[in-house]
Amino acid sequence: MPSYFDNPKSKLDLFRQQVYIIIYGVNTPAGKAFDVGLLIAILLSVFTIMAETIEGIDLYYHSELIILEWIFTIIFSLEYALRIFVSKKPLKYIFSFYGIIDLLSIMPMFLSLFIKGSHILSSLRILRLLRLFRVFRLMEFMQESSKLKVALMASRAKIFVFLYTVLIIAILIGTLMYYIEGPANGFTSIPKSVFYTIVTLTTVGYGDMVPATALGQFLSMVLMVTGYGIIAVPTGIVGVEIAKEVGKSLNEQQRKEKDSNTLNGTVCAHCNVEGHRNDAEYCYHCGHQLNI
Amino acid sequence: MPSYFDNPKSKLDLFRQQVYIIIYGVNTPAGKAFDVGLLIAILLSVFTIMAETIEGIDLYYHSELIILEWIFTIIFSLEYALRIFVSKKPLKYIFSFYGIIDLLSIMPMFLSLFIKGSHILSSLRILRLLRLFRVFRLMEFMQESSKLKVALMASRAKIFVFLYTVLIIAILIGTLMYYIEGPANGFTSIPKSVFYTIVTLTTVGYGDMVPATALGQFLSMVLMVTGYGIIAVPTGIVGVEIAKEVGKSLNEQQRKEKDSNTLNGTVCAHCNVEGHRNDAEYCYHCGHQLNI
Amino acid sequence: MPSYFDNPKSKLDLFRQQVYIIIYGVNTPAGKAFDVGLLIAILLSVFTIMAETIEGIDLYYHSELIILEWIFTIIFSLEYALRIFVSKKPLKYIFSFYGIIDLLSIMPMFLSLFIKGSHILSSLRILRLLRLFRVFRLMEFMQESSKLKVALMASRAKIFVFLYTVLIIAILIGTLMYYIEGPANGFTSIPKSVFYTIVTLTTVGYGDMVPATALGQFLSMVLMVTGYGIIAVPTGIVGVEIAKEVGKSLNEQQRKEKDSNTLNGTVCAHCNVEGHRNDAEYCYHCGHQLNI
Amino acid sequence: MPSYFDNPKSKLDLFRQQVYIIIYGVNTPAGKAFDVGLLIAILLSVFTIMAETIEGIDLYYHSELIILEWIFTIIFSLEYALRIFVSKKPLKYIFSFYGIIDLLSIMPMFLSLFIKGSHILSSLRILRLLRLFRVFRLMEFMQESSKLKVALMASRAKIFVFLYTVLIIAILIGTLMYYIEGPANGFTSIPKSVFYTIVTLTTVGYGDMVPATALGQFLSMVLMVTGYGIIAVPTGIVGVEIAKEVGKSLNEQQRKEKDSNTLNGTVCAHCNVEGHRNDAEYCYHCGHQLNI
Repeated sequence: MPSYFDNPKSKLDLFRQQVYIIIYGVNTPAGKAFDVGLLIAILLSVFTIMAETIEGIDLYYHSELIILEWIFTIIFSLEYALRIFVSKKPLKYIFSFYGIIDLLSIMPMFLSLFIKGSHILSSLRILRLLRLFRVFRLMEFMQESSKLKVALMASRAKIFVFLYTVLIIAILIGTLMYYIEGPANGFTSIPKSVFYTIVTLTTVGYGDMVPATALGQFLSMVLMVTGYGIIAVPTGIVGVEIAKEVGKSLNEQQRKEKDSNTLNGTVCAHCNVEGHRNDAEYCYHCGHQLNI
Repeated sequence: MPSYFDNPKSKLDLFRQQVYIIIYGVNTPAGKAFDVGLLIAILLSVFTIMAETIEGIDLYYHSELIILEWIFTIIFSLEYALRIFVSKKPLKYIFSFYGIIDLLSIMPMFLSLFIKGSHILSSLRILRLLRLFRVFRLMEFMQESSKLKVALMASRAKIFVFLYTVLIIAILIGTLMYYIEGPANGFTSIPKSVFYTIVTLTTVGYGDMVPATALGQFLSMVLMVTGYGIIAVPTGIVGVEIAKEVGKSLNEQQRKEKDSNTLNGTVCAHCNVEGHRNDAEYCYHCGHQLNI
Repeated sequence: MPSYFDNPKSKLDLFRQQVYIIIYGVNTPAGKAFDVGLLIAILLSVFTIMAETIEGIDLYYHSELIILEWIFTIIFSLEYALRIFVSKKPLKYIFSFYGIIDLLSIMPMFLSLFIKGSHILSSLRILRLLRLFRVFRLMEFMQESSKLKVALMASRAKIFVFLYTVLIIAILIGTLMYYIEGPANGFTSIPKSVFYTIVTLTTVGYGDMVPATALGQFLSMVLMVTGYGIIAVPTGIVGVEIAKEVGKSLNEQQRKEKDSNTLNGTVCAHCNVEGHRNDAEYCYHCGHQLNI
Repeated sequence: MPSYFDNPKSKLDLFRQQVYIIIYGVNTPAGKAFDVGLLIAILLSVFTIMAETIEGIDLYYHSELIILEWIFTIIFSLEYALRIFVSKKPLKYIFSFYGIIDLLSIMPMFLSLFIKGSHILSSLRILRLLRLFRVFRLMEFMQESSKLKVALMASRAKIFVFLYTVLIIAILIGTLMYYIEGPANGFTSIPKSVFYTIVTLTTVGYGDMVPATALGQFLSMVLMVTGYGIIAVPTGIVGVEIAKEVGKSLNEQQRKEKDSNTLNGTVCAHCNVEGHRNDAEYCYHCGHQLNI
């Protein structure tokens, strides 16, 4: 909490306090309304930028779209200024992840006054949509799923080795395909052939390049079936880790249960030791008779 | 059961009773025959609507298809009237999910008498196929699979976060692709580029748009491999929940088993020892007869 | 074993005996060589039929291919005759699955003498490749995997419901796409639109039909992401069943272990009952003192 | 370690010793720098070969690329010579997997002096990228994942049977598609139809061949849904094995725990009762001191 919070000295401090709660808070109705309004503004401004790239729309509504973009830019600029103004450590906000994105999403429009065409960089404000995670507290759901996170982290290295192996295979077979098919059949270079191999191995299959020779078709079929089959590998890698994580927690649960079930909590009146067998008649520690 | 069931007062009541059993029942031969006949009629009427949209067929058999559609509409109208007539609470049926679908599947044809072309909305009667679930009691199989349902419900929020993240990535990379490839290579607008990104990320790969620049091809390859790899994430999310559910029920099973197998808490009246076998007749400790 | 086996009366019987071991046996070197030779013949005959359909090859080598086909047909006919000749119950073989396939793979060629063009049905001899399962005892590996089989059988109904739901969704959205895109954009009929929907939902994505309208593209994107995401459902269904199966066998293992560990096998000298507590001093059944 | 290591007799021996540590070692800074430099050289040489196949680049920089290739070839030749020179058992290295790849990656360039065009075989040096596994010790991560390896090995035969069945289905349906669609619709031969079937079944979907008849489209839809659904089978096969492996290790863990936790078999010298806590000093039954 900013320092002026605890001890607001002026009307300005009280104003900052209120604005802070609206902008950064998510629990008050005003704070929620602000967040939802902001999200809608971000979405609309993203749509405006998208619409500008559609020739049919841009032809008829070019100036209207530019005006809309300026309106959104001014709104976001005001919001940016307010955020700096009310935060206790403005520098911390400015150099934070969201602070940099907020700046990047208003800069291009102002730059376009000097450098023509630079306003297209406004698309960067799409990143502001990431705020949704904060607003709707979606991250909490993710943090809850720590088991999946641990599993994914643990399988990181294995997935990297898997992808690296896939890449080497793709480069090798891509080179082979280049020599088999050749430029005459559309495999104009090794990089393009590698592109074809990746397109086939991942079962994307654009169809812009298709093998014409019998050997090329055979190799492609092997590639497809391989790509189709080895999807079980990343799934398997993550699966093993998930099973381990769940197994651990199951074991823990069982252990706790057993611990609480097996040896009871009767306390020896003589030496205060607990954890006796249910049918114990004497304290296992001092030999004193129990339950007298 | 409708009230006239318990005490049919007239011949009409008896008729309603019989019709009710045929229409709503699934256990009598007549009820089963009605359901199967209805399903065949629905399928045939759907095929009729489909056939109408195939130019080659419509050209030669237009009037025949229209007659067929009217026949099916009249059959469904009669069925709809009967359903209202025999049900105890007609309003409840009329405003139920199936009641509304039944009405929507006959309305368009009658509307077409006044508004030309509106009979194409008859396609809505495809929804009547959902009745199959009721007829063949398929839902029971699904309800049985409560573990999967619980797992899917529990992973709902995580799958939403996953899809939302995928969407932001798609919009970002789609925008990037637009600036890399440009309208000259078929990436005419940001929405079309986002469309391309989704097509590639989900490994659909139409091939109507294909990157022509080296950078665009490289980014697409990264996209494909990512799309191919992250399919392990939704599978993993559901997998964790499934494993938890199964783990829970396994634990429960084990606990029950332990409870029923292990030694019970009956206390020997003679020596106060407990932990006897469930079928024990004598105290294992002092040999005294139990339960007297 | 055929009856002439136990008591060969003539030289013919001895010959039949030897042929039987070669044809049906897989353990002798001659039997193995026969099986491998047969497989090679089947593969070569399949390749011959395939080659016949390749214009470039058929143009130059038509008569050679026909001669080859006749050679394979005569070989398979001889083999068929021998199989009938040496088997104890010829009728059982003739009407068995493999018996019918063996007949179907030689019939078309002879039929082609009377009905021109019918020899293309020879492709049916591809089915003879199923023998590979028997020869290399591959089925044993599958039978071993009874857990997967049980899991797949148990999830049969759920997978059917899943596929049926997918189908209804495909028909519905296909119809929608027809009205959104229309014949002008290549969606010439509802069946073709349904074809497009299935192509998209299963992430196949031929690209022969691609939405041109904004709404059609949006709906297609939803379809792709759905298709990409719901692959977790069949995997999940089978996963739950697998987990159950493995869980059961784990539990069984634990129970067995526990059974052997908890109650010991001491037998009461008085009533012959066993299964006493490890620390029992008296028989729980007859109250007789143990271990005397 | 080579023999000259233990007892270097000359300056040459000392030199060999030092070079050996640099080339084969990965723990010294010099060794690491050598490995990283080598990897960069391999990558650059692969890029050079790729660039040579891109017409636009080759047109303008042909001689520069050839010079670059010669530089890399000379570097790799020197490295190859050094590796032979310093290794204790040169023959073992020469005939090892990496030794052969190292030779194959320099041979084509020298061969191109005599046989024109043979330098394109230099692409084989892509295989040298496999060294990355050794340098970054990636294999260790893989070896750690022994559970996945065991699971994959155990499911090898089942996956083979699965793929073989898929292949027979593909050949059969491919043949069917050939007779349904025919050369008029692009299904010019059975091998091409089988190619189409594999393309569809694995959800690759190039779109270069698309069924035009209603029956062909229907069969293709069945194929797509099948292909989409049976991906659960290989995943399931590996899943069963993973679950078994994890289950085994969980059981083992539990057993060990139980062994260490449960009551031990020490017998009280006074009352012959057993099943005391591991840290018990007195008999829980008669209060007598244990272990005297």
